Order: sequence, then structure tokens, then C-alpha cells
Amino acid sequence: MNTKNDFSHDLVLEREVPVSAENLWNGWTNPDVIVKWFTPKPWVTTEAEINLEPGGIFRTVMCGPDGERNEGDGCVLEVVEHRRFVWTSAMGPGFQPVAAPADGFLFTAILEFTPTDGGALYKATARHSTPEDAAKHAEMGFHAGWGEALNQLVALFVTEP
Amino acid sequence: MNTKNDFSHDLVLEREVPVSAENLWNGWTNPDVIVKWFTPKPWVTTEAEINLEPGGIFRTVMCGPDGERNEGDGCVLEVVEHRRFVWTSAMGPGFQPVAAPADGFLFTAILEFTPTDGGALYKATARHSTPEDAAKHAEMGFHAGWGEALNQLVALFVTEP
Repeated sequence: MNTKNDFSHDLVLEREVPVSAENLWNGWTNPDVIVKWFTPKPWVTTEAEINLEPGGIFRTVMCGPDGERNEGDGCVLEVVEHRRFVWTSAMGPGFQPVAAPADGFLFTAILEFTPTDGGALYKATARHSTPEDAAKHAEMGFHAGWGEALNQLVALFVTEP
Repeated sequence: MNTKNDFSHDLVLEREVPVSAENLWNGWTNPDVIVKWFTPKPWVTTEAEINLEPGGIFRTVMCGPDGERNEGDGCVLEVVEHRRFVWTSAMGPGFQPVAAPADGFLFTAILEFTPTDGGALYKATARHSTPEDAAKHAEMGFHAGWGEALNQLVALFVTEP
């Protein structure tokens, strides 16, 4: 009757990877590690600042090959060590709401790492305000982009034969 | 250099009250109690739903004397029993970002209850995206409205002589 809870338009990337939940956690929450894989080449992540507590900062600076610069101060929401990490672009540190960009969208990222025999199940969910925002994110290449970034994260821990 | 963390335009209501931190907590987090004080008369809060965990719903329905109806599904952010309760209108349950209303604003409410000899120090902070949004909230009567609601909350626990 009341609760909307319509998550049907979430964008989800789910894949079993040969990397432990602990290493996936480290990849997402350690600023020194996240800069190594977060953006599909030729983009690079030049800065990261992560304060691992609810209300803490989740900041990244992403730079493109033609001088593009995309920076954002997000907010950490949930910290369940090695298992679940949630942050949002809809708020800055201290839970301060952010005004939505005129031509963009806001989203919450829910990262879940579940141990498996050979590594872990990696699940990344991007949750948006509206189906339209989710469609915009999908058209921007959510699946290809987050998938390629995950390849780079996996490559940090898996040596090719 | 990076972090904005400019909270200078927070709206704050701070007052020492002759009510324990536990009772203030109960007033804010128990749906059966919040409906008794949340809206200054002649408005009434007709429904409340609160799921006391990060990502849980914070829903209220407020009705005015001329049939006005103001309802919102907010999101619980921080739960520190008896001391600190944070929720936001900028997200719905499950940390889903909310599209800002065209003529309104979004805010995060930070409630803090600190025990004192005679009761507790009550501190309510409303944190907005921009100074303009804070000004809008102030003009709408933040201080008078939240202050009168607090009077009603106190009156639940203090019997006049």
C-alpha cells in the first residue's frame, strides 16, 4: 500500500570470479588499490579517498585521454567488512544531499561479495531514482564499463598462465 | 582541496529538555509514538512506518486541516540506540535516490540526544544540498515548526503542574 521499493530497474552485474571476497573488498575500499582498476582504459582514476564508515566520503577523480575530468564526492552508506559495501552519488560526506546534475543522474552502488569454492560471487547493483535514469546509465555503457573494470580488478589478483 | 563538507547552512534546533534521551529516542523511532507529536497542530500525522536499520523505510503521512496531504518515504541512515538517529528524504528505502521535487528540496535529518542532569540535550539538524534549499526550509518555518513539534514531544512525557 505504501512502500514503493520498486527495484525492477536496478542495473546489475553479477559474475563469479577467481578472487576472494577479501580481495574484492580490498579492491573497492582501499584507495591505493581502487585507482588501479576503477576505470576502463584509456581512462584512469587519478585520486581516491574513502572513509569507511557511514557518512564517510567516497571520492574518486576519473580522467579521460582527451583531458576529460569526472570527479565526485559520494557518501559511504553501509560497511559490512568483506561482504557488503554501499555508497551513493546522491549524497556527499555527512549525508548531505546532492543536487542532481541537469544532464545526468544519481545512483546508489551496492557491492556484494559472497565466498564460493573458487573465489567469490561478485554482485554490483546500481540503483536509480527512475527507470529513465537507469536507462540513461545503461545506454552510457553500464554493463560494458563495469564489466571491463571488473576484469581489471580480477587481473590485479590473478596471474595469467 | 577536495572535501566540500560545508555544513555552514545546516538548520539546527538545539534545546535542553526535561525528557530522557531514551524517551526522545522512543518519540522519534516508534511509529505509535511519533504520530502523537510529529506535526504542529492543526496538522496531524496519520501514519508512520519506521524500519530501524540502515536502508530501512522512514515513512510519514501528514495531513492538514484543509485536506492537505504530505507523504514521504524516506530512508533510515544511522541507528545508534538512544543517542543518534539519521534519516533522509533524499533516498527511499533500499537507499534508492529520490528525484528532487521541482518546487521543494531534499534534506537529511540528524537527531542527537545527549543525557544531561535534568533530562537531555535535544539537537535536530536539517542538512540540505545548497544554501538556497536551507533558506527555503527556514522560510517555510523550520525553527517554529520543529520547535512546536518538540514542545508536543516533551508534553508527552512531562505532566504540567
